[in-house]
Amino acid sequence: MSVQIPPTLRVVPDPADPRLTRAVTGRDQTGAAVDLRVVEERPLTIYLNSREIVTAMTIGDHPEWLALGFLGNQGMLRASDVVTGVDYDDELQVVVVRTEVETDHEAKLARATRTSGCAVGTVFGDMMEGLENLTLPDTPLRVSDLRALSHAINRTPSLYLQAGAIHGTCLCAGPDPLAYFEDVGRHNAVDKLAGWMRAEGVTAADKTLYTTGRLTSEMVIKCALMGIPALVSRSGFTAWGVEIAQQVGLTVIGRMKGDRFLCLSGEERVVWDV
Amino acid sequence: MSVQIPPTLRVVPDPADPRLTRAVTGRDQTGAAVDLRVVEERPLTIYLNSREIVTAMTIGDHPEWLALGFLGNQGMLRASDVVTGVDYDDELQVVVVRTEVETDHEAKLARATRTSGCAVGTVFGDMMEGLENLTLPDTPLRVSDLRALSHAINRTPSLYLQAGAIHGTCLCAGPDPLAYFEDVGRHNAVDKLAGWMRAEGVTAADKTLYTTGRLTSEMVIKCALMGIPALVSRSGFTAWGVEIAQQVGLTVIGRMKGDRFLCLSGEERVVWDV
Repeated sequence: MSVQIPPTLRVVPDPADPRLTRAVTGRDQTGAAVDLRVVEERPLTIYLNSREIVTAMTIGDHPEWLALGFLGNQGMLRASDVVTGVDYDDELQVVVVRTEVETDHEAKLARATRTSGCAVGTVFGDMMEGLENLTLPDTPLRVSDLRALSHAINRTPSLYLQAGAIHGTCLCAGPDPLAYFEDVGRHNAVDKLAGWMRAEGVTAADKTLYTTGRLTSEMVIKCALMGIPALVSRSGFTAWGVEIAQQVGLTVIGRMKGDRFLCLSGEERVVWDV
Repeated sequence: MSVQIPPTLRVVPDPADPRLTRAVTGRDQTGAAVDLRVVEERPLTIYLNSREIVTAMTIGDHPEWLALGFLGNQGMLRASDVVTGVDYDDELQVVVVRTEVETDHEAKLARATRTSGCAVGTVFGDMMEGLENLTLPDTPLRVSDLRALSHAINRTPSLYLQAGAIHGTCLCAGPDPLAYFEDVGRHNAVDKLAGWMRAEGVTAADKTLYTTGRLTSEMVIKCALMGIPALVSRSGFTAWGVEIAQQVGLTVIGRMKGDRFLCLSGEERVVWDV
């Protein structure tokens, strides 16, 4: 497999960054010594103004975008909130997002939902909040573009290819991957992407979100709330994820391997051009 | 691959249980209609006495064991706490664990850590609590047994083989799988296993814990706190997971596929008998 960075990719993983992986020595099944690199996993504490919100376990790249995207995806930071600064302290492993006026995020800290793939998950407030009146654009999704994306993403140099045990996500426009993020948690990766979109003013309506993670309810909801009409994964589905996607009109495509995939929701957007 | 249930397995997944998967219809890459089954994902709210602790997203089997194991693994329920009852209400999707005396779990609700593979994770209290004085037994781990387990587990009928998009965990003794649990969240599966061990009075010191999930810090800590000296996965490692395993003397074996694996901690327990 020839490894190359697609020219349209504005953000790419940096497997050469020594802070993201660690060299370890172990033994294989024969007892022979083996040297390999494994991904880092370190705490990052996110503050919204003066309030500590959460400590995320992350590989550690793009802390500002992770904080912005996390707060946005949790509904603690609205599009209308004016962010006056995002300050990251590398020593303290703390990132502080400052807004012009205090937000109402305290209200979100009420209920706790443990979500799929989690040690213990907390969804601040109602998971479904904001989905009721959501209408996603009818952006066409060409099968030929999905093939191109699958091949382009799999050939892009990544921590996954170097060290494994990591999730990736990629924002795409038609056949072109635009920004590729990785993290130990699949949601961290998507939150970094959301933070980057907010910081760069990238529109969602004409995009496709690719993830290596499963199409669970929380991933479907997150993608829909981000306003992205199509969610694509190489992994599988959960029934509630599919049900919610059908309710909100999100196109979900899973088990995408090479040229093969399954579409279980929003097939009306898919253009079978191959 | 011949599918068969090992005779030593006392608890096995039930892919035939209609409540655990749902029939859906979709389209493949050619636009052809495809019928398949996808795993369910439903909320289960766990109470400890009169207090609502968390709502877990789960496939829904073994709710009593999930609640017992979750509370135990979160340190909200100690071995010394006398459980007077575990009541599950199928309609309300609520399970209540009752103890003779109120526990001190409120103290655990203080800090929040978002953990790997999570939407948002909350580790109640200090993740490392209880690890300081932990000593794990020197139970030998034979490479021949690991091979036998890998083959036995992969051949056992499961939701994974039927529907995918699910994690599994299996408690093993030497070459024998004893109890196999699955769930949308890898930690749910381990928590069900822990609840079953508590309910059945199964010892941990002579066992091996197999998981399909990655060997992250939280999984390593959970296994160590359960008192199981060896953690085996077909997935990969994170640096902090390996570091903690080395600190507490837990044997971690990852990337186990067929006869191959990597051991990055606790190799002194491994008997290279093949």
